[in-house]
Amino acid sequence: MATLEDIGVSALINILVAFAFLLAFALLRIQPINDRVYFPKWYISGGRNSPRRSRNFVGKFVNLNVMTYLTFLNWIPQAMRMSESEIISHAGLDSAVFLRIYTLGLKIFVPMTIVALLVLIPVNVSSGTLYFLRKELVISDIDKLSISNVHPKSIRFFVHIALEYLFTFWTCFFLYKEYGNVASMRLNFLASQRRRAEQFTVVVKNVPRVSGHSISDTVDQFFKTNHPDHYLCHQAVYNANKFAKLVRKRDRLQNWLDYNQLKFERHPDRRPTLKTGFLCLWGSKVDAIDYYKQQIKELDRRMALERQKIIKEPKSILPVAFVSFNSRWGAAVCAQTQQSENPTLWITNWAPEPRDVYWQNLAIPFVSLTIRKLIISLSVFALVFFYMIPIAFVQSLANLEGLERVAPFLRTVIELKFIKSFLQGFLPGLALKIFLYILPAILIIMSKIEGHIALSTLERRAAAKYYYFMLVNVFLGSIVTGTAFEQLHSFLHQSPAQIPRTIGVSIPMKATFFITYIMVDGWAGIAAEILRLKELVIFHLKNMFLVRTERDRERAMNPGSVDFPETIPSLHLYFLLGIVYAVVTPILLPFILVFFALAYLVYRHQIINVYNQQYESAAAFWPHVHSRIIASLLISQLLLLGLLSTKQAANSTPLLVVLPVLTLYFHKYCKNRFEAAFRKYPLEKAMEKDIKDKTTEPELDLKAYLADAYLHPIFQTFEVEEEELVQVRAVRVDKYQSHVDNEQTSNLSSPSSPHQVDHAASSANHHAYHPTSSPQYVYKTSSPPQYSDDPTFPSYYSYHYEAEP
Amino acid sequence: MATLEDIGVSALINILVAFAFLLAFALLRIQPINDRVYFPKWYISGGRNSPRRSRNFVGKFVNLNVMTYLTFLNWIPQAMRMSESEIISHAGLDSAVFLRIYTLGLKIFVPMTIVALLVLIPVNVSSGTLYFLRKELVISDIDKLSISNVHPKSIRFFVHIALEYLFTFWTCFFLYKEYGNVASMRLNFLASQRRRAEQFTVVVKNVPRVSGHSISDTVDQFFKTNHPDHYLCHQAVYNANKFAKLVRKRDRLQNWLDYNQLKFERHPDRRPTLKTGFLCLWGSKVDAIDYYKQQIKELDRRMALERQKIIKEPKSILPVAFVSFNSRWGAAVCAQTQQSENPTLWITNWAPEPRDVYWQNLAIPFVSLTIRKLIISLSVFALVFFYMIPIAFVQSLANLEGLERVAPFLRTVIELKFIKSFLQGFLPGLALKIFLYILPAILIIMSKIEGHIALSTLERRAAAKYYYFMLVNVFLGSIVTGTAFEQLHSFLHQSPAQIPRTIGVSIPMKATFFITYIMVDGWAGIAAEILRLKELVIFHLKNMFLVRTERDRERAMNPGSVDFPETIPSLHLYFLLGIVYAVVTPILLPFILVFFALAYLVYRHQIINVYNQQYESAAAFWPHVHSRIIASLLISQLLLLGLLSTKQAANSTPLLVVLPVLTLYFHKYCKNRFEAAFRKYPLEKAMEKDIKDKTTEPELDLKAYLADAYLHPIFQTFEVEEEELVQVRAVRVDKYQSHVDNEQTSNLSSPSSPHQVDHAASSANHHAYHPTSSPQYVYKTSSPPQYSDDPTFPSYYSYHYEAEP
Repeated sequence: MATLEDIGVSALINILVAFAFLLAFALLRIQPINDRVYFPKWYISGGRNSPRRSRNFVGKFVNLNVMTYLTFLNWIPQAMRMSESEIISHAGLDSAVFLRIYTLGLKIFVPMTIVALLVLIPVNVSSGTLYFLRKELVISDIDKLSISNVHPKSIRFFVHIALEYLFTFWTCFFLYKEYGNVASMRLNFLASQRRRAEQFTVVVKNVPRVSGHSISDTVDQFFKTNHPDHYLCHQAVYNANKFAKLVRKRDRLQNWLDYNQLKFERHPDRRPTLKTGFLCLWGSKVDAIDYYKQQIKELDRRMALERQKIIKEPKSILPVAFVSFNSRWGAAVCAQTQQSENPTLWITNWAPEPRDVYWQNLAIPFVSLTIRKLIISLSVFALVFFYMIPIAFVQSLANLEGLERVAPFLRTVIELKFIKSFLQGFLPGLALKIFLYILPAILIIMSKIEGHIALSTLERRAAAKYYYFMLVNVFLGSIVTGTAFEQLHSFLHQSPAQIPRTIGVSIPMKATFFITYIMVDGWAGIAAEILRLKELVIFHLKNMFLVRTERDRERAMNPGSVDFPETIPSLHLYFLLGIVYAVVTPILLPFILVFFALAYLVYRHQIINVYNQQYESAAAFWPHVHSRIIASLLISQLLLLGLLSTKQAANSTPLLVVLPVLTLYFHKYCKNRFEAAFRKYPLEKAMEKDIKDKTTEPELDLKAYLADAYLHPIFQTFEVEEEELVQVRAVRVDKYQSHVDNEQTSNLSSPSSPHQVDHAASSANHHAYHPTSSPQYVYKTSSPPQYSDDPTFPSYYSYHYEAEP
Repeated sequence: MATLEDIGVSALINILVAFAFLLAFALLRIQPINDRVYFPKWYISGGRNSPRRSRNFVGKFVNLNVMTYLTFLNWIPQAMRMSESEIISHAGLDSAVFLRIYTLGLKIFVPMTIVALLVLIPVNVSSGTLYFLRKELVISDIDKLSISNVHPKSIRFFVHIALEYLFTFWTCFFLYKEYGNVASMRLNFLASQRRRAEQFTVVVKNVPRVSGHSISDTVDQFFKTNHPDHYLCHQAVYNANKFAKLVRKRDRLQNWLDYNQLKFERHPDRRPTLKTGFLCLWGSKVDAIDYYKQQIKELDRRMALERQKIIKEPKSILPVAFVSFNSRWGAAVCAQTQQSENPTLWITNWAPEPRDVYWQNLAIPFVSLTIRKLIISLSVFALVFFYMIPIAFVQSLANLEGLERVAPFLRTVIELKFIKSFLQGFLPGLALKIFLYILPAILIIMSKIEGHIALSTLERRAAAKYYYFMLVNVFLGSIVTGTAFEQLHSFLHQSPAQIPRTIGVSIPMKATFFITYIMVDGWAGIAAEILRLKELVIFHLKNMFLVRTERDRERAMNPGSVDFPETIPSLHLYFLLGIVYAVVTPILLPFILVFFALAYLVYRHQIINVYNQQYESAAAFWPHVHSRIIASLLISQLLLLGLLSTKQAANSTPLLVVLPVLTLYFHKYCKNRFEAAFRKYPLEKAMEKDIKDKTTEPELDLKAYLADAYLHPIFQTFEVEEEELVQVRAVRVDKYQSHVDNEQTSNLSSPSSPHQVDHAASSANHHAYHPTSSPQYVYKTSSPPQYSDDPTFPSYYSYHYEAEP
């Protein structure tokens, strides 16, 4: 077990690492050459131009202004300057509410830390006067400050119970306030949004196939019958997954072609070549540029064929449709009601916003969804309970005795005092961290298999899985020795009353481990986040090999986004640790406070300057945040119950049993009061906005506005001729830019984004291809934007089709 | 422990009792004097007139036709003759679907019994050749036929496991089919129903109080804004609970007055007197008729005052309203969507049908509902776990050794062979039954406190509570000795893996107890149900003392109804017993089969001839029936798992673990597939009926039709003068008759039921009293029925009001 000294060494290392990262960041960010790595958000929102234009040659790459080096820490006040409403309009509500989780953490834990340290440390330490006699039981110095130091049957435990009550009420108070705040922020945000396609659109799944009718006809007829006053039009969905694969392949080839062309431009004396065999290592040498050009041509031919197939084959129209209504009220009604007698047909839900749609999953047949869910839930169970085995192995190595046994030759090194401290303080946390690194990717894939059709839902589901994983493997797994499967086995053979005891009794002993974990993951990890080392390297590599034009450079920027599926569950772990250890080992709280403060600063900076959210869910994740903090409260109460029962403070049990009941009741109340704001769209609000719209824009052609909003994005690259390719890519960058805040990006939207939508819209009530009549569709990139004055027009879908009889 | 002989004696007694009841029934039912006790349903539906008119004096009371005595068992073929669709139109869908539970039981258990007896009995018995050596362990003869007789580690257990699989699949197959059938029956029933007020009406709870506006104005404005195309009108709800109390008191006094007047008519020489003091035992003697007349006059005065108060006081308008729409579609939309930003305001639900409304609970403030629910759930928990203590005491008496210890003087009696068998076979079941007798009343009161506003919901909630009670106390409580609280305590201190073992191991030993329970509760109890002894006695008492006119006689009939809150949970217990014991002690199955067959016959007869359902929920209880049979399957699987693990057939565990997972999955699938049919009203169906209505009756004045549907029933007795009383009571009988099947009762509906509704309806958009203008309302009983050609007009509300400026 680690001593106070080990903790000290670990803290020192982590503080040094964190400072090194922060210093590196402070120095790198002021170099003009890195400007696009550290301020991409401003480039995207148009608020910043390359600083390299105005300077001399060296000044383009290195910052020669000495003054800026003296103020290199000014990113912190800069990050704090922006107000919350500015952040909302700058980066979206998701980001703003994400930051509120950190302030919530600070609000909860700052007073909690002060009270816990002032009250509990004296209680615990002074109690030790008796207990010190049995010194061998006091495992580390940290434990002298913890509840372990209190004598069994002591009356002092009532202090701990009182504080548990106080902390629970304190936390619930802030949770309630925050839930209310976030709910009203969400509603205000939705109310203040300009007109958007998803406000009028509902996604309908499992449309029944009626023989003799196309899916489009069926949809049209059904909604004309059942929503006669509100139905406007619909868009059919095509199974274009194969086509999308070809598009991706073509993009990849295009990249290689660009790379080779650039290479040739720089060294016109040597034409680039490549080998055609496996991994470009074997086979005959050919001219690279010609080879790729030919490959792309071949691919274009195949894409044209595939496109024909999609258009002609009625089966490629999926039994899914995006149905649009002439008012928000009509859409809200359709999304919230049951349409058909058979509840597994005509399932309606709010459509995700167009850039949030995960098109691939629309092709999943409805019947397989429940089976997929079953399989994935079993897999998640297996993952959660077996993933720990390798981690436990590594951790047993980090347990020095184990390491020496496995590798006796290392003994002399390990026995060095400093290295020993390092290993004990650093390695367990690091091992865990590395193993956790590849996990989110697995979980996202699992969520994709589950068949959710919105990226935001995918991420939330992945976050839920990640949370279970963290809870079982990181929290429980670190507390109870042995693999998770062994735990499961032993829990099954223990009484329910025994489990909290087993865990509770080892809680204080693991405080040192969690302190090192917080320092590695929370301090150094967060500092690494702001440095963006990976993105920095990749950007410069791309800059060197692929970038030809300014547009290419913009494309090479990878602003990234808040990684919700990973970040939010990690945050929950910190909440859990803080709440559990608040009464057990309060010395852990300052470490958590440092984490929350540092992470708040870092993420505030990143959200303002770097990240570019892919979608806007309007804080749809908050109910999960809330309920998992409640779960942390419940866990802490149960564990304290278990811990105290091993301390023979049994007469305290009734006092502690009341608390979970109250907490659950509080949770239920909050759910009733606030959750609907996140799941449904009240008719009152919908009507309000409808009326406002009607008065401000009485003769808007909504049908034209909605016509192409939900066209599969890959259909926009149809029929693009070779010479238009550069332009296409430029447009695609625009697509990328039309992000969270449409209002701000509108002035950037490319002049080539074309809209002759009104023609197409008026030509047919719905925009499906009729396989029977099979008309010729020509995809153009033409005409000036019609709705350029309307910033909410989905400019990311730049190409559209037009029917030619 | 009971031997086979004890079982035999018990069976004999119960069969004799059951036959005695059936014989008594067969004889009593053909006596003309009892006609109204055994055929009230036919009187109500108008299909039968008193048989006493046509006969001579003796023939009026006793059946003198010898032939009918020979065919006294013909009620059975008679009961079977009616087809299901006839039952639906005769007694409603609830009753028809209730009968389907019994046929479902037969469908599941008949093949199960055959297979279990043919396969398991030989396996169990032959296995005993080894086991017989340790005879002292074989507790009773029944056990020789059960799984207890199989040697530990025997390979024969795989037969049991295979049958458990087979039975699970068999049960699930029928459950699935039946869920589908009932769902489509429900939808057809709803689709075929004529126009009814509740199809157009939504109940809105927690209307916010806006200062300066009355509740009615607020409601009107809100729905005019948010449902402009569909909102029609609304009815405010008054807190008339105090007035209702006065009305009930007046009825009671009126009864006494009638009784005394009748007494005086029969003995004109002696004017009845009474004492005015406590319980009519003390105080001065007064003339009874004068006294009651005066009391009623005084009460009328108070009622008039109270009525004035309700009308004038704005606070007596509750923040609840019945909001009606001009189409079923509009109502379906409003009921299924969220109206307001704050989800605890403007809560909308389908309105229960008018006779299903539990008016008292509409006055409960919304904020107190969650607290009430918390308190009631804690009370139910306490009830379930502490109610058993007295029962356990009685059962320990029935345990003969215990009885002899408590009352040694009884020893000589007890030791008599016959009495001993009787006590052991009969008493435990009887004790349980008596204790269960008062329980439903308690549970209904608890559900009322929870604040549900529909009688049907009240009954379903009470049924749920009763089910938990039966499960814990009757099933588990009988299997595991000790009080439920002791069990709870021991379960908390056992491992989760140990609990099914503890219970599983005692399952086979309790088979004899449950066999006697089935015979007492199932056989004799059901036979008692058909005899209607209590109702018979009460009818004749009323006939003797209160009945003056034919109408009075009709009023004295108490047809009763299927007691859902009690009957359905009991049925679930039989399903549970059958499913659990199917592989453990298959000899129990024939007893259950007899129960299902007998109960099916009896309830079929009662539903056709006796019961008159109070409301029609269109089989809304079926999802509960389904899910509780699934719960029985899960329990049986877990218990078998536990039982087999004590038999050291551990290698079978994985096989049995798969089964609950599959069962749960099946449950989830069924829920997704069918449950919406019971909870929601698909827009497709609503639109279909709307269109049909529009084409058949294009110029129907729906507003007039809906105007008074949800008026508080007690308001109808306003301003009724002394001389009109007889007429009022006649009308009230009509109210009673306008039941399930409105089509059939229409020809009965009293000519005095008045409708000048159209005037009132057109005079104001909503029918609330405006406390500010406080107009004079006069309640009339006048005018010929306007909608007599429309049988669905709510004729049970016979009095209405008219505004006089």
